Amino acid sequence: MSEFSAVELIIAKRSKRELSTAEINWLIANYTSGAVADEQMSAMAMAILLNGMNRREIKDLTAAMIASGERLNYPGLSVPTADKHSTGGVGDKITLPLVPLVAAFGVAVPQLSGRGLGHTGGTLDKLESIPGWRASISNVEMQQQLAEVGGVICAAGSGLAPADRKLYALRDVTGTVEAIPLIASSIMSKKIAEGTGSLVLDVKVGSGAFMKDLASARELAKTMVDLGNDSGVNTSALLTDMSTPLGLKIGNALEVEESVEVLAGGGPADVVELTVALAQEMLRLAGKTDIDVAAALKDGRAMDKWRQLISAQGGNPSAKLPVAKHSHTVMAAESGYLGQVDALALGVASWRLGAGRARKEDAVQFGAGIELHAQLGDRVEAGQPLLTLFTDEPERFARAQESLAGGIQITQFAPAARNIILERLGNG
Amino acid sequence: MSEFSAVELIIAKRSKRELSTAEINWLIANYTSGAVADEQMSAMAMAILLNGMNRREIKDLTAAMIASGERLNYPGLSVPTADKHSTGGVGDKITLPLVPLVAAFGVAVPQLSGRGLGHTGGTLDKLESIPGWRASISNVEMQQQLAEVGGVICAAGSGLAPADRKLYALRDVTGTVEAIPLIASSIMSKKIAEGTGSLVLDVKVGSGAFMKDLASARELAKTMVDLGNDSGVNTSALLTDMSTPLGLKIGNALEVEESVEVLAGGGPADVVELTVALAQEMLRLAGKTDIDVAAALKDGRAMDKWRQLISAQGGNPSAKLPVAKHSHTVMAAESGYLGQVDALALGVASWRLGAGRARKEDAVQFGAGIELHAQLGDRVEAGQPLLTLFTDEPERFARAQESLAGGIQITQFAPAARNIILERLGNG
Repeated sequence: MSEFSAVELIIAKRSKRELSTAEINWLIANYTSGAVADEQMSAMAMAILLNGMNRREIKDLTAAMIASGERLNYPGLSVPTADKHSTGGVGDKITLPLVPLVAAFGVAVPQLSGRGLGHTGGTLDKLESIPGWRASISNVEMQQQLAEVGGVICAAGSGLAPADRKLYALRDVTGTVEAIPLIASSIMSKKIAEGTGSLVLDVKVGSGAFMKDLASARELAKTMVDLGNDSGVNTSALLTDMSTPLGLKIGNALEVEESVEVLAGGGPADVVELTVALAQEMLRLAGKTDIDVAAALKDGRAMDKWRQLISAQGGNPSAKLPVAKHSHTVMAAESGYLGQVDALALGVASWRLGAGRARKEDAVQFGAGIELHAQLGDRVEAGQPLLTLFTDEPERFARAQESLAGGIQITQFAPAARNIILERLGNG
Repeated sequence: MSEFSAVELIIAKRSKRELSTAEINWLIANYTSGAVADEQMSAMAMAILLNGMNRREIKDLTAAMIASGERLNYPGLSVPTADKHSTGGVGDKITLPLVPLVAAFGVAVPQLSGRGLGHTGGTLDKLESIPGWRASISNVEMQQQLAEVGGVICAAGSGLAPADRKLYALRDVTGTVEAIPLIASSIMSKKIAEGTGSLVLDVKVGSGAFMKDLASARELAKTMVDLGNDSGVNTSALLTDMSTPLGLKIGNALEVEESVEVLAGGGPADVVELTVALAQEMLRLAGKTDIDVAAALKDGRAMDKWRQLISAQGGNPSAKLPVAKHSHTVMAAESGYLGQVDALALGVASWRLGAGRARKEDAVQFGAGIELHAQLGDRVEAGQPLLTLFTDEPERFARAQESLAGGIQITQFAPAARNIILERLGNG
């Protein structure tokens, strides 16, 4: 405790001095134990946000957060492991078809996931809309399922990077979320502690994402790719578009529905394209090249794996999914092309309908959300249904519609074709 | 509470956006009530430290802190009021001779003062070494003494700028002390709430001061002079040297001793010069010019006022002052000139001897401190006593001497003559 002082370290970072490995280790260990107070750590977080950290400091910060808890590994597993992390987007259900698709090719996916806060949904919230499915399983169950089924999507236990858990909650209430060193170390400490051998990062860019422009998304991606590879995890990143939602469905059960469509060989082209691209990248990092990934969506192999994966955690893959009690459909006011379908506007609307939560303690509505009847660039005719809003509480419609204002625009000419995958940042 | 959100205001300041008057009022009111949490306010303080505030924001911040508590005034007083605030230095006992000196000329001084934390002493700690003297008096007693004696030096009640009290304690542990908007609003909110009509700021520059260089001292002084005048307090500032201690004595009872020497017409020339200059400036602001201030030190008028002032608060001005149990004298190792007597080194040594406190709860030793036997520029001979250290706990000598290393240097040639008053920043 007496080796360093929190005030001295805050003043150092405030004055743009580099923090040493020993200083960072001391800071994180003492913040985890409570000896460094929340008000000290939030001042430090603000100093990091405004003055930055270099590659070595970010690596040390990540290592210190990993060291604050347990680190998983899979000594009994005979196949390679690979995982994916998305920085979060609207309609981003890709994890759901992706995990069984990759598992179908003999690469195990140990996906520790989270719940949603704010306008981007959480993978666990989506899967919990499947009757019986359990997000919390023990480490032993996880190891077993990984060996038997080849994939698992579950909640990260509280033993994993507890320093990050504490710091993340603090950043959320102190205006210190949007700092690349803090975002990168938060994501990567959990993914490295999770024990995956390879990792593909899906870094979102655009209105619905954390990173609104390509330059900052690229910086975040590069920081995380370096962090992963420096720590022995074979890591690469795709920078992908999040200016408009992925697919036609936004919400918990709605996104499970659309994922099952993709696993059945159908589904919207953008969701299929991104799922296949990420699967290919994960398999490549795990040493499997020249694989026709899309074939496993067509021939039922990915669907079989999905059903095993859901059943293994108590879910009934054939059960009817929850449906919202109320719906409201918005029609096109004029004819033309869907020139804008803004991800943030749709994400906030879905959140206000009850698909997301305002505070950690809140419950989500499984049936709430939005179904689009057309995507960006599609031709629409006046009077045609444009989108349907779903909620259990009809008083939510008004505020949801407010957030849509200006977010959807019908134009005379078709917008430029959309690129979903913008860039790839390799691991060499 | 719901008008603004703390996180949004933090993000605004983090992004270098100006905060509106309403936003600042909301922030301070809700921080005072506890609705804005310490960890949020410390992140805000760091954002202010790194991104600054403009003149309007600092004025609003000061006004909001004043509005968090009571504001004193003296409707029954028939004479003008003037006060002085020093940003703190080593051996800075000037308040002690200054208050009775100004009061002797019919200008009342309502000095609300503080205790010391760190290496600069506190006026109240010094006065409390006088047997019987009480720092805490009621507002009614203060009004009465001001009318009857013409001066009061006492502790600020908890009703005065409680927001500042809370924020100051927070800044102390979160590495956010050294921000000009926060220092200026903290000092000025208390001085404006105190109700003085005029105010002279003694802004210290040099190793023993907050502000180490003239440029930052000038910026702080200018900010505070503007704040005072904008709020209707006739304010000016002197920028004064704090590279070497003021006078020959550092410590609580030791500084009372030296103050009494000055009030008796003697004392070190630098202490006399600064006392007279500050008294002249206070009297000028209160409308009294062409006064021979120094005469009142020679003819006993200031001493009479001092005795009244001490007696009025229960003190015995004739009582013997506490003396330390142990002393240790350091001799000059060689002959030459005192080329360096570093204020910070001496301040830290005195603090380590027990004259100051490490934590708010600690008590100070009244007798502890340092007596110099020569000042900067004086001729010294090898073997002659250079300084004497005083403490009740002899185990403190070693660490005190450590902090003196390099702080005192004997040189072959005399250093350049010292200017005590470096600049004056007027009120017009």
